[in-house]
Amino acid sequence: MAAARLKYFGWGREGEAMTAEEEAFALSTYRALFGLSDFPAVAVPDLEAVALRAPRLMPPASLAAFCFAERYDRAAHAFGKSYQDTVWGMLNDYASAPDVVAYPRTEQEVAAVMDWAGDAGAMLVPFGGGSSVVGGVTALAARDRPLVTLDLREMGKVLEIDRASRAARIQGGAFGPALEAQLKPHALTLRHFPQSFEYSTLGGWIATRSGGHFASLYTHIDDFVESMRVVTPAGALETRRLPGSGAGPSPDRMFIGSEGILGVITEAWMRLQDRPTHRTDQVVLFKDLYAAARGLRAVSQAGLYPSNCRVLDPMEARNTGAGDGSAAILVLAFESADHKTEAWMARALECCADHGGTLETADAASARAGAAAKWRQAFIRMPYAREKMVPRAIITDTFETAITWDRFEALHGAIVAATEAAIREVTGRAGQVTCRFTHVYPDGPAPYFTFHGMGRHGALLEQWNAIKRAASDALIAAGGTITHHHAVGREHRPWYDRQRPDLFAGALLAAKRSLDPKGVLNPGVLIDP
Amino acid sequence: MAAARLKYFGWGREGEAMTAEEEAFALSTYRALFGLSDFPAVAVPDLEAVALRAPRLMPPASLAAFCFAERYDRAAHAFGKSYQDTVWGMLNDYASAPDVVAYPRTEQEVAAVMDWAGDAGAMLVPFGGGSSVVGGVTALAARDRPLVTLDLREMGKVLEIDRASRAARIQGGAFGPALEAQLKPHALTLRHFPQSFEYSTLGGWIATRSGGHFASLYTHIDDFVESMRVVTPAGALETRRLPGSGAGPSPDRMFIGSEGILGVITEAWMRLQDRPTHRTDQVVLFKDLYAAARGLRAVSQAGLYPSNCRVLDPMEARNTGAGDGSAAILVLAFESADHKTEAWMARALECCADHGGTLETADAASARAGAAAKWRQAFIRMPYAREKMVPRAIITDTFETAITWDRFEALHGAIVAATEAAIREVTGRAGQVTCRFTHVYPDGPAPYFTFHGMGRHGALLEQWNAIKRAASDALIAAGGTITHHHAVGREHRPWYDRQRPDLFAGALLAAKRSLDPKGVLNPGVLIDP
Repeated sequence: MAAARLKYFGWGREGEAMTAEEEAFALSTYRALFGLSDFPAVAVPDLEAVALRAPRLMPPASLAAFCFAERYDRAAHAFGKSYQDTVWGMLNDYASAPDVVAYPRTEQEVAAVMDWAGDAGAMLVPFGGGSSVVGGVTALAARDRPLVTLDLREMGKVLEIDRASRAARIQGGAFGPALEAQLKPHALTLRHFPQSFEYSTLGGWIATRSGGHFASLYTHIDDFVESMRVVTPAGALETRRLPGSGAGPSPDRMFIGSEGILGVITEAWMRLQDRPTHRTDQVVLFKDLYAAARGLRAVSQAGLYPSNCRVLDPMEARNTGAGDGSAAILVLAFESADHKTEAWMARALECCADHGGTLETADAASARAGAAAKWRQAFIRMPYAREKMVPRAIITDTFETAITWDRFEALHGAIVAATEAAIREVTGRAGQVTCRFTHVYPDGPAPYFTFHGMGRHGALLEQWNAIKRAASDALIAAGGTITHHHAVGREHRPWYDRQRPDLFAGALLAAKRSLDPKGVLNPGVLIDP
Repeated sequence: MAAARLKYFGWGREGEAMTAEEEAFALSTYRALFGLSDFPAVAVPDLEAVALRAPRLMPPASLAAFCFAERYDRAAHAFGKSYQDTVWGMLNDYASAPDVVAYPRTEQEVAAVMDWAGDAGAMLVPFGGGSSVVGGVTALAARDRPLVTLDLREMGKVLEIDRASRAARIQGGAFGPALEAQLKPHALTLRHFPQSFEYSTLGGWIATRSGGHFASLYTHIDDFVESMRVVTPAGALETRRLPGSGAGPSPDRMFIGSEGILGVITEAWMRLQDRPTHRTDQVVLFKDLYAAARGLRAVSQAGLYPSNCRVLDPMEARNTGAGDGSAAILVLAFESADHKTEAWMARALECCADHGGTLETADAASARAGAAAKWRQAFIRMPYAREKMVPRAIITDTFETAITWDRFEALHGAIVAATEAAIREVTGRAGQVTCRFTHVYPDGPAPYFTFHGMGRHGALLEQWNAIKRAASDALIAAGGTITHHHAVGREHRPWYDRQRPDLFAGALLAAKRSLDPKGVLNPGVLIDP
């Protein structure tokens, strides 16, 4: 049976949504937070009501077999999944909808579409799974220039397996679940599970430097890329498959994180893992986030490399059902396909205890079944909330960063203060800002913030923008990166422009012009042509 | 007491050389190998006899305080330490000698020299410690264009320490020992010990993607770079200090490995380690290199991350005094500042045993004192051999690569066959090719080859070139990288050009032109302007 198609509005496939229970839990939290009893929802346009301009270009006959301009295809590719995207969809503002959506089945077809788009004066936006929360696929320039969106879902195969080196050659359009399903018979796994896992692709992960399953050591997809093939307007290129190299600046690293402005990643050799057979889980309680940070710093600098070491601050623990709000919660796990992990966990718990961390339960199995499972479930289901909350004028969004340990508390304090003040200022009512760590490095954590405010229909975009601006200004001023793993897209541009050295931007632009002389690829992302 | 100055010819400082015992051991090995009784040495020109052209430019008064054109400075900066370099020095061919050597004391002075060189139509070559074995600092173009060499030895300070994040801001000209000496009072260490450790600099390590102490996990300096400052002809830039980021392609990764063609690395924030307090060593014997490779593959894929896991093939073990030639030797070590490492070692030894590896001795202390120590000593002293062997017409050199496990045996076989055949062909006598692994990754090893042939004065350069060409052709054809950690320089250019995608080279050239529009920096390395 074919899977249901992806929704044109909201997260996931048709038929999927928050359960009534999840929705009730979320609304009860907002009732308590905002002191409101009801959150009436406005209607979202049906697919048939979506306002699409007449297509400004049509594919030539040679491309017609895989290029479409149907209502569903165009509407479902107009946006990613950011807060702004969802508001625009609700407001029936489909200015960013593509004129044509291409579903190439081969690299030759990718190149053919790219050539055609360039010759036709159109832009080409690689869509990945469309899960961008930073405007990475929302081509606002489509107001003034025809847009072709490239969807690689027909190129989702694992093409080759090298069992000895634990690596596989995989097409860029492979979605997470299909990719893992093809690896499973070989007892291998990529073990890269971003929150968007079900609805994002390998090519998208690489193009956006996705952050994955591993909370320490191999946190970004970057480190799993062994080589890649990229189609650019100037031609296709392939990097050499190597476990390591010192031959000049890494070609892979130029394309990793290039967010579709340099080329389209059609396939990559990826480093894989054996499927883990040993696992130890624990949940450690700390009095607050800063105490947890000190414990986690010790763990991260001990050379133990836990597979999971997520920390939730007390409020975030409560909001996700993982705790009662009285303590910060560290969800800690070690896994291995090779050896028992108890010795690793024992030492990590000592590091935590040195900083006041106490076990929620001595029993690893119940830790895994308890708070850790509740958090995991909440984590997977979170993206379904947005389409339910935006129509209720609730402003809720996340942003994330990374910072060295010495500056973490100052950054956290400044961001929370600025974001809370902005929410109060623009909504006239107190909101909430919570924080967790998604990844930790020996030299610092990757803090992830969630904020909630009660917005007003008719002003949602400007309210969201004002809060986002305050948070991002504070983040950049405190020394963080505007994104640890969500990417830059269009929404982070003003802060990325302050973060990256101007001379690097000039060099990147020069590189882009050599690969994409007509400026066809994803304009507005990362740099301006 | 000031340290002796660096030699103008050969490795290390004045007064340092192979001991008589080391020389006798090496020559006895060559006697047995070549069936010759004597290796008469030709004379190397004294410093006073070195043939230097009259300087073609002189620094302006504003730069005179740190720019020199003395005989010693110019001769000592004419070459790196490659085989060709040593032959040229012996032959008194100093065409690559700089006209002026600058020893700037500040970033402003670096920029001033760069501006002056650009305005004067000269080239600027960043020298690092001058330990390049690939022609990275040997500016052959100096035949036709004035050359200023930049030596950052006066910028060797640790400027700032962040104990919480275990990081330090260090100037690019810091030599290994001075760098570690400044970190030691803080109980921190960079723990990056390339073979050139004493005579190479932080900036050079970063510019050439140096491979270091750690044989697994963090093998390249790349992963220890938190941020950097770079002076380019277009201005200075600084990247943001971050433990991790997903904001576009990494700016650091564009400069890491850029080998002086994009800018000069004046300082970097480096990730450090606590000084290890726990250590376990073992030496494991395997019947041959391929058996050792299978054992090491298991270790590398187990997620254990040994700090040392060097393998020597039987002949290499014998040549270095670490073994008797009857077995391949694996030198294995775990170290930690946090926890005892016996459990890690125990599991690694099980992996080895599964592939026929047997302990040389059950006692870890005697393993460390025995073959492991002999190997370590030989490793550190090796670079002193070249200046003694070239005048004896012995052709001995090393090259290294990396390859995925599935292709390792084929690559090894092809390289050994091609190199042995070339030695026999060009020298008329059998030579020897040995192999060790310097680093291992889960997806493949970094094999390191040493070859020996009996050359002929008057033909050394062409003989060496023919052998190098045969070895490199085989290496590239078998899928390897032309360098895992020696860099590209000028000597590896023909094979690097076949390895890197042309479109990447075009993008890199475009980036270079935006940063170095006059083509001042290190011409001939990596790409042609």
